[in-house]
Amino acid sequence: MQRTLCSALPTTPPGETVRLQGWVHRRRELATVAFLVLRDRSGLAQVVVRDGSALPPEETTVEVVGTATANPQAPGGIEITDPVVTPLTEPAATPPVELWRPELNASLPTLLDHAPVAWRHPAQRARWELAAASVRGFRSTLDAAGFTEVQTPKFVASATESGANVFEVDYFGRPAYLAQSPQFYKQQLVGVFERVYEVGPVFRAEPHDTVRHLAEYVSLDVELGFIDDHRDVLAVLREVVAGMVAGVHEHAPAAVERSGARVPVVPEEIPVIHFRDALAMVGAPEDEPDLAPEHERALGAWALEEHGSDFLAVEGYPMAKRPFYTHPEPGDGRWSNSFDLLFRGLELVTGGQRLHRPSAYDAAIRARGEDPATYAPYLQAFEHGMPPHGGFAIGLERWTARLTGVANIREVTLFPRDLHRLTP
Amino acid sequence: MQRTLCSALPTTPPGETVRLQGWVHRRRELATVAFLVLRDRSGLAQVVVRDGSALPPEETTVEVVGTATANPQAPGGIEITDPVVTPLTEPAATPPVELWRPELNASLPTLLDHAPVAWRHPAQRARWELAAASVRGFRSTLDAAGFTEVQTPKFVASATESGANVFEVDYFGRPAYLAQSPQFYKQQLVGVFERVYEVGPVFRAEPHDTVRHLAEYVSLDVELGFIDDHRDVLAVLREVVAGMVAGVHEHAPAAVERSGARVPVVPEEIPVIHFRDALAMVGAPEDEPDLAPEHERALGAWALEEHGSDFLAVEGYPMAKRPFYTHPEPGDGRWSNSFDLLFRGLELVTGGQRLHRPSAYDAAIRARGEDPATYAPYLQAFEHGMPPHGGFAIGLERWTARLTGVANIREVTLFPRDLHRLTP
Repeated sequence: MQRTLCSALPTTPPGETVRLQGWVHRRRELATVAFLVLRDRSGLAQVVVRDGSALPPEETTVEVVGTATANPQAPGGIEITDPVVTPLTEPAATPPVELWRPELNASLPTLLDHAPVAWRHPAQRARWELAAASVRGFRSTLDAAGFTEVQTPKFVASATESGANVFEVDYFGRPAYLAQSPQFYKQQLVGVFERVYEVGPVFRAEPHDTVRHLAEYVSLDVELGFIDDHRDVLAVLREVVAGMVAGVHEHAPAAVERSGARVPVVPEEIPVIHFRDALAMVGAPEDEPDLAPEHERALGAWALEEHGSDFLAVEGYPMAKRPFYTHPEPGDGRWSNSFDLLFRGLELVTGGQRLHRPSAYDAAIRARGEDPATYAPYLQAFEHGMPPHGGFAIGLERWTARLTGVANIREVTLFPRDLHRLTP
Repeated sequence: MQRTLCSALPTTPPGETVRLQGWVHRRRELATVAFLVLRDRSGLAQVVVRDGSALPPEETTVEVVGTATANPQAPGGIEITDPVVTPLTEPAATPPVELWRPELNASLPTLLDHAPVAWRHPAQRARWELAAASVRGFRSTLDAAGFTEVQTPKFVASATESGANVFEVDYFGRPAYLAQSPQFYKQQLVGVFERVYEVGPVFRAEPHDTVRHLAEYVSLDVELGFIDDHRDVLAVLREVVAGMVAGVHEHAPAAVERSGARVPVVPEEIPVIHFRDALAMVGAPEDEPDLAPEHERALGAWALEEHGSDFLAVEGYPMAKRPFYTHPEPGDGRWSNSFDLLFRGLELVTGGQRLHRPSAYDAAIRARGEDPATYAPYLQAFEHGMPPHGGFAIGLERWTARLTGVANIREVTLFPRDLHRLTP
């Protein structure tokens, strides 16, 4: 007999014999009858049992064969009667968190120490389902726009991109490093495919113990060639974020409900403010090199009030604070053709136009007091002809955290890794 | 003016002014006229130039504005006349390989040392386009079958899964290791989502210098719960491989042509042979613990001749050679409920049913002389109720190598990493 998913019960004809499989979500014994609430990936089902004392403990996996029976009070209008319940494993140990409660009431350490079990809670599972649906929307938007998905190496020979916070690996007896981003590789691959994206882990030896930093996170990276400037990149970013939102609505509507996520509306055009004007607006000194968190919050509030937008792009960040491959603003080299995208007052994306002329790389690297020879493998691509290009990177966990409103990014990461945590 | 892609020229009305962007693929000077062949991500275009000596060198990126003009001898029946050619960067250095030749004639070291440039060759680029299209087909098959995409940590606390060939990382002053596979995590997540997949890098400190091993490769991992046995896993694998083939046909038909790939037909049912019978067929001693490469080739030839199939599943590998989480064959514990999938006589996939009862894990770990406490974070999932489950992993590079018939897996890897190579 084919398996029936819980979600298919409402459309199952009453009287039919069905075979369900899942976890004992809840046992409930009343005076004259007992209920087994079964959980599978699609939802819950109510099973009516004569003798509740014979039921296996909660979280045990079971098979239930019984009769689909109409009952207006059952979820979906159908419950299972006259069941034969067969355990599929040994009786489960009592879960460290009460998974059957509508709310997941567990401290953060409990949640993280018992991740493989805590993620089973329907509201918690929903958070990841939102992440997965977002990634699906990310990819389908870019696939439709002529992008090629790439997979770039995580082992790199030198710690050149930023220099700080890299993990060192024993690579067959010599040192190698873990890539902090696919930046150099996605640029080189613009020289091949014009438009590329990658979804993969990046590694930061982040010594700070904050609610928004992880040692390993999932980066959604995009890079495209033949642009005029960073505004073309921003236009693609707008489509991508709209695609992620569409992905959530299309693939995870139930997860939106279960998680209580506030899914944003992406405006046709994301409002843009220049860094210079942003500083003035928040009353910061005009020589500030970056926006402080409270500035970002204030700007987010302004974008919502003034433009009705959860998103705000800040362009023109000072060159001094951007990486060496950043393209300056034509006419005023103090500013750059780069941007951050704020989502509800928090930085979600960094992007911009990159240098593409070999002589510009040479000058930029020398200006840092470094030797261009160190970058030889990367610079090959530019010497052999690169188009004007740019791109951006979205942190998946930050996106899901904002969507669900959790306080700590670890709550939306399947198995977070940080300064202190390397298990489970 | 909007950019026109080369592939859109055949449907462009003659006489229209168009704007193309791309690389100078080839300059050709004849007695009275010169040609610029322009390359973009979609193909090539022929541009007719009066004075060839003024053209920038090959691989320089340029913009061409000119008139679409009918010419039956031009590729696609349209060429560009009266062009204005504007370089988008400085004149490109001479490429280390001749990218304009129909065949990429370069030694493997040249190909690998100059990867960012060599990948621009249309036949070489096609190889990766096949890989990307395959991954797209992999995901869409699983998305449609109720699987959830997951992202699991690459930093792990111990080298427990196989013990050998792991990379050690300096993780904030203490040792951590790079995951050799998402095996433990995808199993734990079956406890959450029932059906999961992951596409991501795995790391093997592979000390052998062979044509089929890399220190880092892309693993397409699948795991699903509520199965009867490994045959259910094999049925999903059949759908997945068929989906990858469909992805290639749908998303990369031009790349099939450019690369000369031989795309297989996936039979409705993949033929299966038991390991015991496979040994007998190839004339190997019955106590051999594994199949040698020449055995795999002989079995592949047999599957093609007997079943007309490029694929053959060998099931029942001896328990002694399989990892501890492998489910034994009911009735004869010498054999396992696991399989390898051979594609054209080479191992492409390893998979099977896993143990799911906590007592079975306890016994299997003790039988290896190890302490189950070492595996505590992983074993949590089983103690709290897991379904019968199984899964498999496909090596992306091996798949593409077989598809394109290259001798060395490095030829289909964007930036390969091995014992000797850490750049570019």
